[in-house]
Amino acid sequence: MDGRAQDDISPEELERQLALYEPFTQAVRELVDATIRTTVDDHEIRAAQAEIEATTARLRAQQIDGPLGAHVGHGKRRQPWGNTVVGVRNPVAPPVHVEATGGEREGEVRTEFHLGAAYEGPPGLVHGGVSSLILDQMLGQAAGAGGKPGMTATLQLTYRRPTPLGPLRAEAWIERSEEHKTWARGHIVGPEGVTVEAEGLFILPRWAREALARRKADERAVPPYFE
Amino acid sequence: MDGRAQDDISPEELERQLALYEPFTQAVRELVDATIRTTVDDHEIRAAQAEIEATTARLRAQQIDGPLGAHVGHGKRRQPWGNTVVGVRNPVAPPVHVEATGGEREGEVRTEFHLGAAYEGPPGLVHGGVSSLILDQMLGQAAGAGGKPGMTATLQLTYRRPTPLGPLRAEAWIERSEEHKTWARGHIVGPEGVTVEAEGLFILPRWAREALARRKADERAVPPYFE
Repeated sequence: MDGRAQDDISPEELERQLALYEPFTQAVRELVDATIRTTVDDHEIRAAQAEIEATTARLRAQQIDGPLGAHVGHGKRRQPWGNTVVGVRNPVAPPVHVEATGGEREGEVRTEFHLGAAYEGPPGLVHGGVSSLILDQMLGQAAGAGGKPGMTATLQLTYRRPTPLGPLRAEAWIERSEEHKTWARGHIVGPEGVTVEAEGLFILPRWAREALARRKADERAVPPYFE
Repeated sequence: MDGRAQDDISPEELERQLALYEPFTQAVRELVDATIRTTVDDHEIRAAQAEIEATTARLRAQQIDGPLGAHVGHGKRRQPWGNTVVGVRNPVAPPVHVEATGGEREGEVRTEFHLGAAYEGPPGLVHGGVSSLILDQMLGQAAGAGGKPGMTATLQLTYRRPTPLGPLRAEAWIERSEEHKTWARGHIVGPEGVTVEAEGLFILPRWAREALARRKADERAVPPYFE
């Protein structure tokens, strides 16, 4: 694998890369959690830091310039692996695995996920901005799942009750759409019910509409980073 | 350091802990970036994963139960070190360093920060939800800086133009307040001007008002996780 875009990798190669990168990235998520929660002594912290710096140097021996999205992960069969919320190669992503529900509402998607120490705001609670981060992604994916993708233009969040860290779920769907504008809604659900509600307007920008028009003949009509 | 709350550590001990944890956490942030961008071969990825798992085990040999906020980091002289946006012990936090501007607007705060590969949505751009995450924190800190803290009740985001990854700044301030409700506004500024605007309502919940009333005599009136 080098730094060039990989538009045409085979399904087998995609599987191979997932089997390699998913457990690797998950190991870094575990390290992030341990970094926050550890109470080992100063000597151990310094030793761990040296180990981490050595591992980073090993990984940086060969790397792409800049972020992942502009290079790889957006081919015909690829997911946005660098994405902050859903990216399987991004340790900051919980990651949220979004699936279509097949429900009655247009573009309806859902996810179950777990938020630990890395996503904390007030003690024991999910940071209010993390809820908005996940809902922005969910509403955008609902728009994409309904074939009406766009970038966030406006987003309104209403916080009904605190969201506790731990197991959570979220849902989103298309409310209505009009040409290249899509209005979507969704919410996060905790153990005691809905915690945060969101509604947003998603607009497909001109450059993306033009890109879509150019590749109309392609079997894939929607740029994958809008899904 | 153990898992108990540390309400009364000395300024010297605070400095010692910062000097220990800041470079340690920054090393993990670098590893997160390298994890996303590396193109080393499969053998190297597996070797790095084994190293990371060993370091994690070393750190987990002694750790707090659950997230950081409920245990430490909220004493009289402490910052919310586990916070997803500003936490100096949280590798997911960029971190954003918020400072009071001393400007004319009530509670005015600002920050300069850098977002790399870990915060990507569309290729080369900041995830729209990351902008909302940072603005939620900034508006909340403006409310706290003005002595009128609260938890997010509503948040409205308007995306004016794409936010490029790289150096950015943000500002927030109090628009008005009324008893335990505070309305705040703010924005993120990129190389070409304002990219995202936010306005939000922050409410100090009943349990926090009661806690404040109980510790009125204390020199510190505002629970630090509201700042």
